[in-house]
Amino acid sequence: MKSIKVIKIGGKVIDDEHKLGVFLREFVQVKEPKILVHGGGSIASKIGEQMGLQTKLIDGRRVTDSKTLEMITMVYGGLINKRIVAKMQSLGINALGLSGADLNIISANKRPSEPIDYGWVGDISNVNTTQLSQLLKQGITPVLAPLTHNNQGNILNTNADTIASEVASALSYEYKTELLLCFEQRGVMYREKLISKMNLMLYRHLKDTGIINNGMIPKIDVGFHALRKGVDRVCIRNFCISDELKSGTILVKN
Amino acid sequence: MKSIKVIKIGGKVIDDEHKLGVFLREFVQVKEPKILVHGGGSIASKIGEQMGLQTKLIDGRRVTDSKTLEMITMVYGGLINKRIVAKMQSLGINALGLSGADLNIISANKRPSEPIDYGWVGDISNVNTTQLSQLLKQGITPVLAPLTHNNQGNILNTNADTIASEVASALSYEYKTELLLCFEQRGVMYREKLISKMNLMLYRHLKDTGIINNGMIPKIDVGFHALRKGVDRVCIRNFCISDELKSGTILVKN
Repeated sequence: MKSIKVIKIGGKVIDDEHKLGVFLREFVQVKEPKILVHGGGSIASKIGEQMGLQTKLIDGRRVTDSKTLEMITMVYGGLINKRIVAKMQSLGINALGLSGADLNIISANKRPSEPIDYGWVGDISNVNTTQLSQLLKQGITPVLAPLTHNNQGNILNTNADTIASEVASALSYEYKTELLLCFEQRGVMYREKLISKMNLMLYRHLKDTGIINNGMIPKIDVGFHALRKGVDRVCIRNFCISDELKSGTILVKN
Repeated sequence: MKSIKVIKIGGKVIDDEHKLGVFLREFVQVKEPKILVHGGGSIASKIGEQMGLQTKLIDGRRVTDSKTLEMITMVYGGLINKRIVAKMQSLGINALGLSGADLNIISANKRPSEPIDYGWVGDISNVNTTQLSQLLKQGITPVLAPLTHNNQGNILNTNADTIASEVASALSYEYKTELLLCFEQRGVMYREKLISKMNLMLYRHLKDTGIINNGMIPKIDVGFHALRKGVDRVCIRNFCISDELKSGTILVKN
């Protein structure tokens, strides 16, 4: 079975020229087929502010009205995505930036407005693995923006961790799949020490005792979700992906 | 020899929900392989204003400083490109939005800063026809934003008419190629009458006598350039591409 790595990076890495450079030079070293999923919430907030839009979050998730949808389509699909693609091409990676609408890669349903109306937010209904596989076979590296579409002509806002998790899950039928959720920290921490391995029981304990904070919970949830859906290895870690000394927190079933 | 149509639409069509709808419904009807190139200058000017950027034009061409480059990367590569792609997908066209960096489709050199410094503007050095052909063979419809890259990690601003012309020219070795430069008017007009056919001699005459205005000159120039480079048919016309009654101005060699 072929191997694949699905790697997610967040806005704070992308927004920092130096960190993005470090990450991309390491990304080049990954020899197996790979997919990059990027976020960009922090950059979107900044540009939204410049445009006079107010960021409205409920439980850490952005409420996406029409104006906000326009803005994130610009920032995620244009600014961030093309910046990464151009840098990858200069490093010899044949990158292809995609929103969910491009090649119908990721379809989604607009989330129901009850109980909370998040606006133009999409819950993934399908990942086009046939098309993704075809790109990978051609040596192309997909770079996915956190945007999906509803097949009725609308772009939808979808969380980047969720996209990475769903893409990895969908590909796990065909590939030995590894999901790397990269962010600023070394992994899940407890009293400044890295938790190198975490199963569901430990996760629940750390959540119940308030050790794991709100921001981390959705990330770990999508990680365990991917594991349940068949992904072989899930790791929450620093963006220096080749640094084995900082190898992050591996999620395990038992 | 296979046929292909390279069709360019401008910002004023894209910015108008109704007109864009009319255009896309006609675009679906085009049975042969096709490539869409879109502009978006008018939308970029509006959003640039919202962001506090001033539009600076020299001879109708945008001067692209770093902030402007960021803004047009967002607007062209994100907002406009993804809006069109999502709409096409809803109409059953397997669209793929591309900047020049994606799949290394269009490389360019940053224009020298002498005699006029246009900033981050790119003059096309290569169109990746191998990759474009491969996409077309897979039934994919490329949607090109007016952005190129320099293979050193930078996005560059390139005029959409020029991109359409260069892409059509490059493909003319392999395809029977038609270039449609679509805009608001019916074609090149003389005293409210359409000039249905125009060769270089007539063009020069109309230019010398001031009948053809400044805005039209670059468009007609790239049209003739494409004709010289081997494109089989070049037409400057209205965006209602299936309307044979408004069939536009065909450029001819002699």
